[in-house]
Amino acid sequence: MAAEIVNSRSVSSESSEGDSGTESAPGEPFDPAFALHRGGKMAVQATVPVRNKEDLSLAYTPGVAKVCSAIAENPELVHDYTWKSQVVAVVTDGTAVLGLGDIGPEASLPVMEGKAILFKQFGGVDAVPIALATTDADEIVETVVRLAPSFGGVNLEDISAPRCFEIERKLQERLDIPVFHDDQHGTAVVTLAALRNAAKLTGRGLGDLRAVISGAGAAGVAIAKFLLEAGLGDVALSDRKGVVSRDREDLTPVKRELAELTNKAGLSGSLESALAGADVFIGVSGGTVAEEAVASMAPGALVFAMANPTPEIHPDIAHKYAAVVATGRSDFPNQINNVLAFPGIFAGALQVRASRITEGMKIAAANALADVVGDDLAADYVIPSPFDERVAPAVTAAVAAAARAEGVARR
Amino acid sequence: MAAEIVNSRSVSSESSEGDSGTESAPGEPFDPAFALHRGGKMAVQATVPVRNKEDLSLAYTPGVAKVCSAIAENPELVHDYTWKSQVVAVVTDGTAVLGLGDIGPEASLPVMEGKAILFKQFGGVDAVPIALATTDADEIVETVVRLAPSFGGVNLEDISAPRCFEIERKLQERLDIPVFHDDQHGTAVVTLAALRNAAKLTGRGLGDLRAVISGAGAAGVAIAKFLLEAGLGDVALSDRKGVVSRDREDLTPVKRELAELTNKAGLSGSLESALAGADVFIGVSGGTVAEEAVASMAPGALVFAMANPTPEIHPDIAHKYAAVVATGRSDFPNQINNVLAFPGIFAGALQVRASRITEGMKIAAANALADVVGDDLAADYVIPSPFDERVAPAVTAAVAAAARAEGVARR
Repeated sequence: MAAEIVNSRSVSSESSEGDSGTESAPGEPFDPAFALHRGGKMAVQATVPVRNKEDLSLAYTPGVAKVCSAIAENPELVHDYTWKSQVVAVVTDGTAVLGLGDIGPEASLPVMEGKAILFKQFGGVDAVPIALATTDADEIVETVVRLAPSFGGVNLEDISAPRCFEIERKLQERLDIPVFHDDQHGTAVVTLAALRNAAKLTGRGLGDLRAVISGAGAAGVAIAKFLLEAGLGDVALSDRKGVVSRDREDLTPVKRELAELTNKAGLSGSLESALAGADVFIGVSGGTVAEEAVASMAPGALVFAMANPTPEIHPDIAHKYAAVVATGRSDFPNQINNVLAFPGIFAGALQVRASRITEGMKIAAANALADVVGDDLAADYVIPSPFDERVAPAVTAAVAAAARAEGVARR
Repeated sequence: MAAEIVNSRSVSSESSEGDSGTESAPGEPFDPAFALHRGGKMAVQATVPVRNKEDLSLAYTPGVAKVCSAIAENPELVHDYTWKSQVVAVVTDGTAVLGLGDIGPEASLPVMEGKAILFKQFGGVDAVPIALATTDADEIVETVVRLAPSFGGVNLEDISAPRCFEIERKLQERLDIPVFHDDQHGTAVVTLAALRNAAKLTGRGLGDLRAVISGAGAAGVAIAKFLLEAGLGDVALSDRKGVVSRDREDLTPVKRELAELTNKAGLSGSLESALAGADVFIGVSGGTVAEEAVASMAPGALVFAMANPTPEIHPDIAHKYAAVVATGRSDFPNQINNVLAFPGIFAGALQVRASRITEGMKIAAANALADVVGDDLAADYVIPSPFDERVAPAVTAAVAAAARAEGVARR
């Protein structure tokens, strides 16, 4: 009986390889990704029965009116009697989609749907893709503020820098639900988790490490701030013009702030020169880094070449000089994949109805993620697999506990 | 295996009566509606597998990038490769919720979720509740325009008059997807279907009928316009101050337009006086109508007392004078229930990717709905049951065909 109630499209019970779901339609590119995406990747389902008059009189009129009245009297009850505290808006303006750049809201939708089903599959969190027809920061903020009553959290996605910083900050100021730009903080959390384990493996503490980040966009900026927060010894960033330093006069406000916060060593010049003697390389640029520069790093170097699909340096080359190599790809060891973090972070925050996601909650998420590796820690295993079923429950529990400890939980 | 992929909350396979789903939580009102609503009534599910690296590489990066690029090149492909053409936004500002009035966006959410699951259950259409934190008409319009890339249609819901008229009109002008205020047009479609059958049963054509509508809000205005469109002989509306007529000087712009369109008979004065000799009474006011007034209607009167939960006149009383009696309630015969119309109307419009919902599509929906009754037509059966499985397919097919005939279909 239950099957009648859920949607007419059903989940394939076969592998995605080789079954009818991968046949191409006429005129469609011959690629299994197109066949898989036909009709979209998600659906809505009822979680209560609607089969007869009695069902309808409880789930809809007249029964629903009593629930509405109760919420009108006590607005907190919206968390108990609707899906609000279970559902996240995945909001984008389509300006920084994967490596494709500004492709607009419609073309970004397959990524947002993908994100939504990852929320569900890995965190048990419902999520709705919201690709907006505006790129104006204030309009995006206003729009999301107006949408907020219907959602328990907002995951910002693929919004280009520097607008993403302003949009996130303003939304966090105006809303009492978690607002989280995953391209920034999800990446930073997973990076910290892997780095913590890599440091441990090589017998160092985070305070012993000097890192150089290639790329000063959303991910680079967030990683730099978060690693400093977590106690890294020193962090420098470089953009296309070289290391972000106080003596540069071409810096945006965001990078000027970073020049103050980072680069204790007072480096300037090229990325390559900054890497000489550095302990950690973190690539989130989409560019490349020369083998000589990696060779010039300190002994026991940790190389996180996370550009996708082409790492800044090939892992096989990096391994000649580095103690630990991580990438953004699933076909090499140590994949820095955001899906390790965002489902559990939101699940934990929603579980305790957190009003926001604090630095402490992100640190807790990174620690929980690192701890899943446990005694199996090895050079090719500093971060768990996205399919490790221990990950999401561990992150969820750690984030919920941290929210309570930090006083942002509402239950 | 499939069950692992869908959400963790599952649909109860038991009736909603008497099972564990109706037990009250501590502090919760002792009412099965509260127990049923706990945690909300809906969820998102993945319709593609996400079980391993290979799945992820098709549904998410890197495979998804090819699909995004294809849509960026040819925006029409968004309909093929995302859920856009399958999903409707159910948009409200919470100002006219059921009979409860302006209870705000949070308190309206249970109704919007209910609507969403009715979309799914009866039309196979995915729907997402969007309760907005603004009641400003222009802000609502701007917000929905910005949301539109993610949705195949917009169902406006429980927005008070007269703002609902302006909001719908402006959205229809600016968007190329269907925008439909169900409180207006859904009600009008089902009313016309029932009225057509009631006229047939009593040996009259629509052109023979003079109707009086009690209530000049969203539903009353839409019913009046739609019945005239469909060829009714004459229609007059009354609001709290009596019949809407040209000689009144207190009319809003919407009602002034109505005074021009309706009331060919040139009636003025009270609702009761207008009912003398009238063929049809349609109540959408929430008020009452005196037995004497119904007694003064023409022989073979058709009485649609649709106020909920209390009809304008009790059906047993109305039956003393009327040939056909309809209400808005499920516990009397002939329930005028919007769920007979909106799921099929949107399903049909989405099926052919209609750019809007035309008058012709609504007339086609009403005719298809009336035709489901067929030869079983009787005084207590002028409209099908919401649970008649023939309804949604019939409405869907009729609406899709009408969209093609009217040139608003995109496929």
